[in-house]
Amino acid sequence: MVRFVDVPNMRRWLVSTGIERAIEGIADALVEDFLRWEQFDKTARVASHSEIGVIELMPASDGRQYGFKYVNGHPGNPARGMQTVTAFGVLADVDSGYPTLWTEMTILTALRTAATSAMVARALAPADATTMAMIGTGSQAEFQALAFRALLGIERLRVWDTDPNALDVFEANMRPLGFDIVRADSAAEAVAGAQIITTCTADKANATVLTDDMVVPGVHINAIGGDCPGKTELDARILHRGETFVEYPPQTRIEGEIQQLDPQHPVTELWRVLNGEATGRTSAEQITIFDSVGFAIEDFSALRYLAAAIDGTDFFTEVDIIAEPDDPKNLFALVAEGAAAPSLA
Amino acid sequence: MVRFVDVPNMRRWLVSTGIERAIEGIADALVEDFLRWEQFDKTARVASHSEIGVIELMPASDGRQYGFKYVNGHPGNPARGMQTVTAFGVLADVDSGYPTLWTEMTILTALRTAATSAMVARALAPADATTMAMIGTGSQAEFQALAFRALLGIERLRVWDTDPNALDVFEANMRPLGFDIVRADSAAEAVAGAQIITTCTADKANATVLTDDMVVPGVHINAIGGDCPGKTELDARILHRGETFVEYPPQTRIEGEIQQLDPQHPVTELWRVLNGEATGRTSAEQITIFDSVGFAIEDFSALRYLAAAIDGTDFFTEVDIIAEPDDPKNLFALVAEGAAAPSLA
Repeated sequence: MVRFVDVPNMRRWLVSTGIERAIEGIADALVEDFLRWEQFDKTARVASHSEIGVIELMPASDGRQYGFKYVNGHPGNPARGMQTVTAFGVLADVDSGYPTLWTEMTILTALRTAATSAMVARALAPADATTMAMIGTGSQAEFQALAFRALLGIERLRVWDTDPNALDVFEANMRPLGFDIVRADSAAEAVAGAQIITTCTADKANATVLTDDMVVPGVHINAIGGDCPGKTELDARILHRGETFVEYPPQTRIEGEIQQLDPQHPVTELWRVLNGEATGRTSAEQITIFDSVGFAIEDFSALRYLAAAIDGTDFFTEVDIIAEPDDPKNLFALVAEGAAAPSLA
Repeated sequence: MVRFVDVPNMRRWLVSTGIERAIEGIADALVEDFLRWEQFDKTARVASHSEIGVIELMPASDGRQYGFKYVNGHPGNPARGMQTVTAFGVLADVDSGYPTLWTEMTILTALRTAATSAMVARALAPADATTMAMIGTGSQAEFQALAFRALLGIERLRVWDTDPNALDVFEANMRPLGFDIVRADSAAEAVAGAQIITTCTADKANATVLTDDMVVPGVHINAIGGDCPGKTELDARILHRGETFVEYPPQTRIEGEIQQLDPQHPVTELWRVLNGEATGRTSAEQITIFDSVGFAIEDFSALRYLAAAIDGTDFFTEVDIIAEPDDPKNLFALVAEGAAAPSLA
């Protein structure tokens, strides 16, 4: 039997645990996994593109456990009442090849993306950062805000979205939670005075939601939305002014903001910063850019954290998905009755 | 909600439908999909190898539906009471990116592999074939026998396995179903007089279960077991004597029997034979070899056949795996209660 966390159980677990506490737990798992980066079997995600969206599989293995996520990205979905991104994930035992956990991962992905952003910002942003600008306040925005408060103590937010409804929703969700929120009238107004800039927009296009003139020395840019071929958010000039930090270069070169640049453009791998092999921020004036695309190891970290967190709880059910005959070499015995049924032949 | 076919429901469906009828249905779907091969988004499967096994993801899309299979291969599993191969599969809607079906696929893979073998043999084997030799009578063997009976009318089997228990099990399963079975004392004895030779062994090694001297002119070889790097079954000389037919060359070059040969060794793609672009068997003396590794489109065919077959039945349940807030841009609303929970920070 395989453990199964459906949407209602994911909600129950998260409400019981607390979003910020779950993000902290995932961030701890992320740090552990980034510190053993070289142990992982890594693959750039396998994407199937259509004209209106993408479906991806994102596998990773540490040699003991194997995990993968199925995730789609369909920017046109909200207009018909559907989610832009939905996901589910699986953990399996490398020793037997048997799956051990199947879980909804739309909510879990929101947590892991936010935990990754904040974990990276904790390493790269100015130490005295108090204010974050957020350009794009869609489904991911609240989780980002909670992650930055949990890991960096950020409580002042300057927000902007082209969709007033998205701003209304964000404010209604977050004001009761003690955030100091300034609603800006433009991206430029949002970033003014912020030490951290998070861009998280959904258009599948080479957009420029952040122009070069908006970026002052010393900021940390958390660029989340540019995450597939043909989808970017940053003015390329910003990338030439700052230092770009990435998860897994073979994937980021294709999917990230740096798809706009020469394939040789220098980047720094985050795992090397965390383990001390590479330098993070070098000065108060430096612009640091996390060119986030989302990598399979981050999903692996979230999956193994969840698997441990639900152990001993009732936040899962069990599903019978592994056909196991009494004699492992006699699979046919499970369905032998069907051999006597009439054939069309 | 996503339709979910667990092992008990797969059994119920298959017993109700009949194994041979299900194989015929999958074979029809396979032919349809091989005839529109060029419409598919194709990828060699993504494999994660460990010392004792492999875990693979096999995606394919026809632009309207997307399917993938998770499958492991662990030859040491039966010795500890577990299946060598287990699998599950997913279908999704390309237009929205939402999954529509999740199903056990250990049993379904046995059906689709058998359906593919027989569908290919129907196109390549001698038209007057009456007898099949089977080297390796593990979990896949009964399904192969039923598929060859359903599609080619083969009822005479000459079987051999290094494990006497596997032969006992096969005989016990198949004799009641009207097959004429000769139990051989060696691979050479099994193949004597057979027009079709199926090799289906599980060792993850470069083995030679079929040597050159055993192969007489005119036979069709259905080579199933050589299906990952370092795992082959045929004496390479056989490949030089006959014509090799493959599913998807980029994958078969790495995984199939032809991994033993020069990467330029000529092969014929099966879809071209089916649509008439390429010639199949050219003479009664020709040796034809199906270098089967199993390709994602075959799983896609099986998945879409199953999805249609269970529609309107009770052979599935529904699972809540897609997080859908009332406002699609307000995912946070689903878990907002969790934001008020205490943080560890």
